[in-house]
Amino acid sequence: MNIAVYPGSFDPVTSGHLDIIRRAVTLFDQVIVAVAYNSAKEPLFTVSERLEMLRTVLADLPNVRVDAYRGLTVRYAQEQGARALIRGLRAVSDFESEFTMALTNKKLAPEIETVFLMTEAKYSFISSGSVKEVARYQGCLDDMVPDPVARMLRDKFR
Amino acid sequence: MNIAVYPGSFDPVTSGHLDIIRRAVTLFDQVIVAVAYNSAKEPLFTVSERLEMLRTVLADLPNVRVDAYRGLTVRYAQEQGARALIRGLRAVSDFESEFTMALTNKKLAPEIETVFLMTEAKYSFISSGSVKEVARYQGCLDDMVPDPVARMLRDKFR
Amino acid sequence: MNIAVYPGSFDPVTSGHLDIIRRAVTLFDQVIVAVAYNSAKEPLFTVSERLEMLRTVLADLPNVRVDAYRGLTVRYAQEQGARALIRGLRAVSDFESEFTMALTNKKLAPEIETVFLMTEAKYSFISSGSVKEVARYQGCLDDMVPDPVARMLRDKFR
Amino acid sequence: MNIAVYPGSFDPVTSGHLDIIRRAVTLFDQVIVAVAYNSAKEPLFTVSERLEMLRTVLADLPNVRVDAYRGLTVRYAQEQGARALIRGLRAVSDFESEFTMALTNKKLAPEIETVFLMTEAKYSFISSGSVKEVARYQGCLDDMVPDPVARMLRDKFR
Amino acid sequence: MNIAVYPGSFDPVTSGHLDIIRRAVTLFDQVIVAVAYNSAKEPLFTVSERLEMLRTVLADLPNVRVDAYRGLTVRYAQEQGARALIRGLRAVSDFESEFTMALTNKKLAPEIETVFLMTEAKYSFISSGSVKEVARYQGCLDDMVPDPVARMLRDKFR
Amino acid sequence: MNIAVYPGSFDPVTSGHLDIIRRAVTLFDQVIVAVAYNSAKEPLFTVSERLEMLRTVLADLPNVRVDAYRGLTVRYAQEQGARALIRGLRAVSDFESEFTMALTNKKLAPEIETVFLMTEAKYSFISSGSVKEVARYQGCLDDMVPDPVARMLRDKFR
Repeated sequence: MNIAVYPGSFDPVTSGHLDIIRRAVTLFDQVIVAVAYNSAKEPLFTVSERLEMLRTVLADLPNVRVDAYRGLTVRYAQEQGARALIRGLRAVSDFESEFTMALTNKKLAPEIETVFLMTEAKYSFISSGSVKEVARYQGCLDDMVPDPVARMLRDKFR
Repeated sequence: MNIAVYPGSFDPVTSGHLDIIRRAVTLFDQVIVAVAYNSAKEPLFTVSERLEMLRTVLADLPNVRVDAYRGLTVRYAQEQGARALIRGLRAVSDFESEFTMALTNKKLAPEIETVFLMTEAKYSFISSGSVKEVARYQGCLDDMVPDPVARMLRDKFR
Repeated sequence: MNIAVYPGSFDPVTSGHLDIIRRAVTLFDQVIVAVAYNSAKEPLFTVSERLEMLRTVLADLPNVRVDAYRGLTVRYAQEQGARALIRGLRAVSDFESEFTMALTNKKLAPEIETVFLMTEAKYSFISSGSVKEVARYQGCLDDMVPDPVARMLRDKFR
Repeated sequence: MNIAVYPGSFDPVTSGHLDIIRRAVTLFDQVIVAVAYNSAKEPLFTVSERLEMLRTVLADLPNVRVDAYRGLTVRYAQEQGARALIRGLRAVSDFESEFTMALTNKKLAPEIETVFLMTEAKYSFISSGSVKEVARYQGCLDDMVPDPVARMLRDKFR
Repeated sequence: MNIAVYPGSFDPVTSGHLDIIRRAVTLFDQVIVAVAYNSAKEPLFTVSERLEMLRTVLADLPNVRVDAYRGLTVRYAQEQGARALIRGLRAVSDFESEFTMALTNKKLAPEIETVFLMTEAKYSFISSGSVKEVARYQGCLDDMVPDPVARMLRDKFR
Repeated sequence: MNIAVYPGSFDPVTSGHLDIIRRAVTLFDQVIVAVAYNSAKEPLFTVSERLEMLRTVLADLPNVRVDAYRGLTVRYAQEQGARALIRGLRAVSDFESEFTMALTNKKLAPEIETVFLMTEAKYSFISSGSVKEVARYQGCLDDMVPDPVARMLRDKFR
């Protein structure tokens, strides 16, 4: 079975992430959306909240599994029997850091391929960071995140 | 069956292209390496020579097919029943033009996904253009192209 | 009166160009859309055809004027009494060449400001070049160019 | 009246910022230089000090107003009746983050245009961050900031 | 004597840094590898540990000297009688910040030239940050850092 | 003796090229400014004219030699006993192509180092191409090229 891991912080998951996941499921038998425990920055949502959020918005996709992991991403992918890591590209600055990360991962686990997919142009300006900034000041979140995530964001910043 | 098309000029095929093809075959059931007839620039090798060259260097890969096509790349991919277009990324400047092309292709054929793979760092400086420049002045082509291509290049510039 | 010149090849005008023009008219009293005679590349449409095309698609905008010019862009802008040159930015590669051009123009005519506007994300992948490529192979041009331009492109490539 | 808001941290205002403001006043009837309260980083100068600093160095420009704001930039711009946000571009990395911010702002307030102006080449290497670094170690600040700002910086780091 | 300073955090020194140093010694009579005391971030190794580490891995290079400094890099270079600062370039994002720093340094000390060297492609994905990330999770450090540094990293994260 | 080759088309030499040469002579015992015969594009000035132009504007620099060469740049550098190739960097787009060229040259001649120097900010917008464009339409060339080059350009376009 052709398994791919889509790792990330998903703090919170955005419409751009969902776009990438919906593209990935047409290419792989199973896609594991994997929340990294060891993200450097102070998160807004706990890992549990992020898992719940992802399970809610991905409920209609049968070949997607939601999980969390600690440690090196490639080691987690190896344990899951994955052949590929999925990464979304939006902009040139993404490209640079992703390129570096892909080459490091290739060195650590040569049998796992990093596969880059591109978001639709209309999602190219959305990031978890800009979503949180808009939510903090009660800006309109339509089209930036799915409705359940918008509700969870409004609750956080009330 | 999960089919992908890897389109390009391949004038000539480089070690970087081969690296991308070897990565793609681990992810797809069949990879079609497709030479575009309608490339804008004055080519060094005819389409026939490029097909022969590709068949020689890809002979050991059973699930790779070599072909040529005219017209829009996505239309060719649709005719082949492909689910994905493969593109290699080496550098930021690649990224920009590839991003534009991927968005145009997505608009023309939303059911076909563009999948980006990255070459190993050691191939990141190799392009068909730089290979021809080195060959023109009898520079050493080792590691830049496979041996049969190096011979064909030396013949061209004798 | 606050006059701005929007110079370009417009070979042909795209939906992205129109987006920039519609943004510019909210900021300036008059916008002159100016076709450059001295463009380096082999054009698809004559300057007359491009002027006709622009006048057709801009007919509903009262404070827009369509014109053609020869020679240095800043000299033309000075003759028109313009205070600003309008340029659209879509991508990082645009940015670099536009930055260089803006600094050269500033040196030649310090009193004229280059004003950059950004196209909506959905137009960011459209260029005159990609439009011509799609038209050449009878691809669908919806949303890439206004309808009269799509008709003129289909006539050219019949 | 054609009003533009030039938002920023201005911690401190640099010669590059002043260059942008002097360009903006030739294009708009009024330019509001607006200090954002909610900047993420630990500032060197308080908002009051930054307002005082801006008022001092902009005293000769009659159609410039200095202000501070909280919350979303576009909401502040709407309250001021502004038609445009002014942003300066110096480099490719500016471009990327500015592009993302402009698209987010366009979604939140479609009637407000983001207008990008470019600093002169000689200011392209100056940022508030590099100015503070130079001041911290008593380096020469000539041409990087106006004289009153240089004095305030020397006082801070004494 | 033609002296160059290679400044940095070296937290820790990587195989990429060593590659730059080995290139620099063919061009200059003496290369001073200089650890900056005043780096903004929380370091993993103390300055003493970094000096020891550098002296160990550079012991075979007679015209290299290891040192530490406080304050502005150009002032340190002036005190050492250096004619040049050495910087390594790996990627576009390096380029931008290095370009800004080089122009600032040129303004502060016009007689000192910044000289950029490029790492081999195989080191282009290695940074002190990615090395620490790999070490934290017990990933393989071969080829990323010299052996004594790998041992010191393993000790830190035990 | 520490010899460096500064290769290029110099069609024509600009104030930016001169800035690079004046920086290079402080670092090397001899700098050979080398005009490439085999440049792809249609030149404005013959190689003889370019050599004459360079000799005129570099007459005051005793350790600079002007020459022309055919074939691979690194082979010419080897024949001259050079230890380094000098390249100027102005912008991100320069960086990408220069990076690729440097890695190719490193593969062909590992003993020759490519050394990148940066032009002053005020020269960062000047290229041979933009100079020719300005000269073609009788724009002011002050500060873009040295006076003898401005005269030769005016003669060409009369």
